Amino acid sequence: MIFMSDVANKILFIVIDGASDRPVGGKTPLAHASKPNLDALAFGGINGIMDTIAPGIRPGSDTSHLALLGYDPYKYYTGRGPFEAAGVGIDVKGGDIAFRVNFATVENGVVTDRRAGRIADTDSLASAINERVKVPGVEVIFKRSTGHRAALVLRGKGLSPAITDTDPKKEGLPIKECHAVIDTPEAKRTAEAVNSVSRQVLAVLDGQPVNRERREKGLPPGNAILIRGGGEVPHIPSFEQRYGMKGAVVAAAGLIIGIGKMCGLEYLPVAGEDSVDPPRRVRAKVRRAIEALQTYDFVLLNVKGADEAGHDGDFDRKTRFLEDMDDAFRPLKDLKETLIIVTVDHSTPVSIKDHSADPVPVLIHGPGVRTDRVDHYNELIAHQGGLCRIRGMDIMPIALDLINRTKKFGA
Amino acid sequence: MIFMSDVANKILFIVIDGASDRPVGGKTPLAHASKPNLDALAFGGINGIMDTIAPGIRPGSDTSHLALLGYDPYKYYTGRGPFEAAGVGIDVKGGDIAFRVNFATVENGVVTDRRAGRIADTDSLASAINERVKVPGVEVIFKRSTGHRAALVLRGKGLSPAITDTDPKKEGLPIKECHAVIDTPEAKRTAEAVNSVSRQVLAVLDGQPVNRERREKGLPPGNAILIRGGGEVPHIPSFEQRYGMKGAVVAAAGLIIGIGKMCGLEYLPVAGEDSVDPPRRVRAKVRRAIEALQTYDFVLLNVKGADEAGHDGDFDRKTRFLEDMDDAFRPLKDLKETLIIVTVDHSTPVSIKDHSADPVPVLIHGPGVRTDRVDHYNELIAHQGGLCRIRGMDIMPIALDLINRTKKFGA
Repeated sequence: MIFMSDVANKILFIVIDGASDRPVGGKTPLAHASKPNLDALAFGGINGIMDTIAPGIRPGSDTSHLALLGYDPYKYYTGRGPFEAAGVGIDVKGGDIAFRVNFATVENGVVTDRRAGRIADTDSLASAINERVKVPGVEVIFKRSTGHRAALVLRGKGLSPAITDTDPKKEGLPIKECHAVIDTPEAKRTAEAVNSVSRQVLAVLDGQPVNRERREKGLPPGNAILIRGGGEVPHIPSFEQRYGMKGAVVAAAGLIIGIGKMCGLEYLPVAGEDSVDPPRRVRAKVRRAIEALQTYDFVLLNVKGADEAGHDGDFDRKTRFLEDMDDAFRPLKDLKETLIIVTVDHSTPVSIKDHSADPVPVLIHGPGVRTDRVDHYNELIAHQGGLCRIRGMDIMPIALDLINRTKKFGA
Repeated sequence: MIFMSDVANKILFIVIDGASDRPVGGKTPLAHASKPNLDALAFGGINGIMDTIAPGIRPGSDTSHLALLGYDPYKYYTGRGPFEAAGVGIDVKGGDIAFRVNFATVENGVVTDRRAGRIADTDSLASAINERVKVPGVEVIFKRSTGHRAALVLRGKGLSPAITDTDPKKEGLPIKECHAVIDTPEAKRTAEAVNSVSRQVLAVLDGQPVNRERREKGLPPGNAILIRGGGEVPHIPSFEQRYGMKGAVVAAAGLIIGIGKMCGLEYLPVAGEDSVDPPRRVRAKVRRAIEALQTYDFVLLNVKGADEAGHDGDFDRKTRFLEDMDDAFRPLKDLKETLIIVTVDHSTPVSIKDHSADPVPVLIHGPGVRTDRVDHYNELIAHQGGLCRIRGMDIMPIALDLINRTKKFGA
């Protein structure tokens, strides 16, 4: 007798950013933390380890999230620029040429500070650029990010990413001219557009009130921009086209939100986001994600705090975050007809304070999964589970099959 | 001291079609069935799970058998038509254009029944088509299958599969004209041949005695054919060319026999085959396969009943079939110098009554294999074995290496 509750039709895909680790004294934060709710999901689910890109490939959060969503990063990851631009909230479109940007200080024709004294109050500067910098036939979209960082998008027909950066990489040198690296009209036109933006920005920013004030205080003005990491925004088939499911993303980090949007996931904000994810915020995000399952077939929930603690090399804070987060996961056990995936986009070992390629744990919980003997969720024992070792690009096909949305190949 | 019996030189490759499952109340038919003989092979062998195509790809029996035999289905699987045609027993040749066919009823120029009232007595209709339908320069081969189904092959130089179906998909519409989908002489010529066959069949079948009788009984006549799923029969390098081994296939299902033949395996019939595989037939097939190992280096044995029970959603029948089958496997333990592979082509969970992409269990038993701690043959624990998780395309290379037929890559 098969009941409807024996078949899942929705997917809650939880990514605990940077949660897995390398052991320190035999322990990892995930293995050390008390986390009864995650452990119960591991016990009732199928477990394994996963190379989000491939063995030994150290993933970024951008490339790994692409892979986890089933988009081959070797095909769709076209450089930092497009993903930074999406991450700061520019609604990028396939074909846009996007760049990472620094505000910088130029005096007497040379760059004297590549970060303009780590300037932070760049709102008015960004507005001035958007209002006054014009390139015929090209839409110029500029958006500030945190600190001295920003993103630039050139939108229009006949543009190419085959161009060089303007960042001289060292102080004491002038801003570089942007050049085409292939001999096509598109590349030349794009290089000219970048050089035009670069020159106009100098003229527009130098006299801005913010910069006059900074000069009066003896601070380096943000009167120039350095443009780098150009790439073409990929034409990504939308999640709904690809999987026939309506999807949403609940996340705090701009990069994850940007990738979600690029893949056609609806972004569902949670009040007062930031990237540190204090316990209250995690609880709010979990509630939002569960609520969204009423409306969406697929919800990606990214939780960020463990990654931050890993980057800071703080074992205890990482452990504490995971314990608080686990408490916020308590409602998951009551979800019906839902396949719950819990995984990690990359390890962020406290011992190296950066991402590593160590495989991440992955569990799938829900009707129809082949439960195994793994009863704790951590990177040290997950390999004993029924999934063995898979890749990031495998998880969406596996999940789609478990909710019976795959088509037969052959007869 | 190494004895000759410590080295295998033959392979018995057993595929228990559709045997693996998803747990229902924590159990699967394979895990629930009493099957001492398979469990003994698991205990004495090396075990693992296997994605016959790739993780999350839901396999057909055709695509999975290609992969199990070491033929990449993404390269050699050219559509339903060629494999159906081979499956009904047409000796297809590389380059043939093959189609799936329905007998249908056409009255006053429109299709009034796409299955001709599920007509079954189509022998005389098929004979009439083969005798009387002629296309200059093209050999027309027609063969009935079960019920209203049949297969059509066009053989000749200068044909192309780049053409459309004639099946209108709905009743109340006329049979569609076949069109070339690319602008080549080959595609146009093939479309013309299909249209010519389609028209001639109408003229040939309408007055057949079978159809006159059906009309008298008020049944819809099988006076037309709907042609679809056209594909070019792939040029498949033969098993012997590829592996230097003489191979045979023992199977009941036409599709499997067809694939075996396409790959150059000798088909060894067992009296009175059908796809339901009652216990007596399974025992006869096992005997035939073991006997064939005297003559052939490689024998593929496909056992079908578990898949049928899975498609019917019948947990108990699936379990019972597996128990009966296991009893038929008793002689396997006496095989000498033989590598025994026992696997499954795809899961057919009783909960979904169709194939799924859940990995299948695989065991390899014979001299030289690294035995592991797995002591039961089922999809819930096989992952604990020494093979971990492999793919269908891996199994032939692994088996060939174990019988020392692989060549060193490098020095």
